[in-house]
Amino acid sequence: MRRGERDLPQRSRPRRSEAQLPVDGREPGQPQRRGATQEPSPPAFRRSSDVVALYGFHAVREALRARKRKLIGVHATKAAAEKLAAEIAAAGLTARIVEAEELSRRLGPNAVHQGVLLEARVLEGLDLSEIETRSGVILVLDQITDPHNVGAILRTAAAFGVDAVVMTERHAPDMSGVLAKAASGALEHVPIAPVVNLSRALQEVGELGYLRVGLDSEGETPLQAAPLARPLALVLGGEGKGLRRLTRENCDLVARLDMAGPIKSLNVSNACAVALTFAMIRLAG
Amino acid sequence: MRRGERDLPQRSRPRRSEAQLPVDGREPGQPQRRGATQEPSPPAFRRSSDVVALYGFHAVREALRARKRKLIGVHATKAAAEKLAAEIAAAGLTARIVEAEELSRRLGPNAVHQGVLLEARVLEGLDLSEIETRSGVILVLDQITDPHNVGAILRTAAAFGVDAVVMTERHAPDMSGVLAKAASGALEHVPIAPVVNLSRALQEVGELGYLRVGLDSEGETPLQAAPLARPLALVLGGEGKGLRRLTRENCDLVARLDMAGPIKSLNVSNACAVALTFAMIRLAG
Repeated sequence: MRRGERDLPQRSRPRRSEAQLPVDGREPGQPQRRGATQEPSPPAFRRSSDVVALYGFHAVREALRARKRKLIGVHATKAAAEKLAAEIAAAGLTARIVEAEELSRRLGPNAVHQGVLLEARVLEGLDLSEIETRSGVILVLDQITDPHNVGAILRTAAAFGVDAVVMTERHAPDMSGVLAKAASGALEHVPIAPVVNLSRALQEVGELGYLRVGLDSEGETPLQAAPLARPLALVLGGEGKGLRRLTRENCDLVARLDMAGPIKSLNVSNACAVALTFAMIRLAG
Repeated sequence: MRRGERDLPQRSRPRRSEAQLPVDGREPGQPQRRGATQEPSPPAFRRSSDVVALYGFHAVREALRARKRKLIGVHATKAAAEKLAAEIAAAGLTARIVEAEELSRRLGPNAVHQGVLLEARVLEGLDLSEIETRSGVILVLDQITDPHNVGAILRTAAAFGVDAVVMTERHAPDMSGVLAKAASGALEHVPIAPVVNLSRALQEVGELGYLRVGLDSEGETPLQAAPLARPLALVLGGEGKGLRRLTRENCDLVARLDMAGPIKSLNVSNACAVALTFAMIRLAG
């Protein structure tokens, strides 16, 4: 998906929210020291403002396969390196074999790294005008901040073949680590268009011909009955706070998901999954 | 939902997986000591094998409102106690006012407690024979172990009005803390039937007349085209490993979700949301 276009010259715009490198730049075996992050970068783990750490089997495998970003180095346990041997070789890399504990020390005890860490450059963001229409559906995220949620949304977006995900550069999680793991490789497949001002972006999306449908519990019409059309921009609000007023005002219509049960609100990634299912059925029918 | 029936005498069977109390029983201000868990219970936080800690605004509010479990005590910040004043009073409780930091110390730094913690008895589990048919759809979880995922599944199940969720007592997360927070109150609304042996349970579900449809990427037919009927049992496999062989063999059919995009697998809670959307549309049409 979009692999061809990625090779064309385009405005180079690193995703600002990816810029943080969640590895601490220690030498292997060097004990952790607070306040030591200003030292010169050791050779094993570069520290640069546009390098990110991806971990977890699927996240790393898809990054190796997709080659949409510059790959710097793989650190893997013997077992993980063997499982990914073909992909690592095809990417022209050689894995540095490490113990799982070393990865846990670098990434923190909660990182489910599955024995593999890939250092790579950030992916380039897309301009709204560069979105290629395939499914004719894009997602717009209004300050969804939980990396698990955004990761799951990207994974679902990739599964539904969504053309792009538009999100604010600020109030968005880092596009690495936890999010990349939750996205399970989807980060390499769904073009992301980072924007500074979401209202302005929604106006631009409207000018590009998209029907902008916001999802909100206060929506005027059930999504099931809303007049949907391609190209469609589904706009999802942040956890707890929903769509901001200006976001809502820049939608063509605001729809709600009518749920039959005693709890009316869904987790935002599950709401996204339900909405995409409805939308794809409606657009196909 | 099931509120009435809950008051009738029934086999009392606490959910075994709820039995762990994730609070450490310290007196306020008492420093944490390892190995101190065998001390007599302090008055503020009882420690009993069937007491659980629920935290987070929605989880606590729904538990207070639903009254499906014995409520023991509320610990809340002044702000949270004010927001929940009506529910706390209606439940016959008085909040013990605490600082947010005290809750964080008790629950750990990652617990998003939103200023409120409720100690309560575990919910009683349901027997398969006790499932009341309303929507005519139940979920069966085959060793889904991530509490965020199971919590999100319960929330989605509650939103779709699923009649019950069947899951194994072992290889299931604790029905409190993180799961309860992710379920956002749904734990009080979706009856859970804990079973020892899932294959045996699926046989029983079959004898009760349910069409048992497993979801698996290797499924023989797309769910979109599968012959669905009520009552329906949707069977979901664990993260990564999917349905176990015996689980699959005890389904009437195994269906797959055909996704159009470059990533074919969804997060299990999102797969559940997509499957329930399809199922409800198909069963309604």
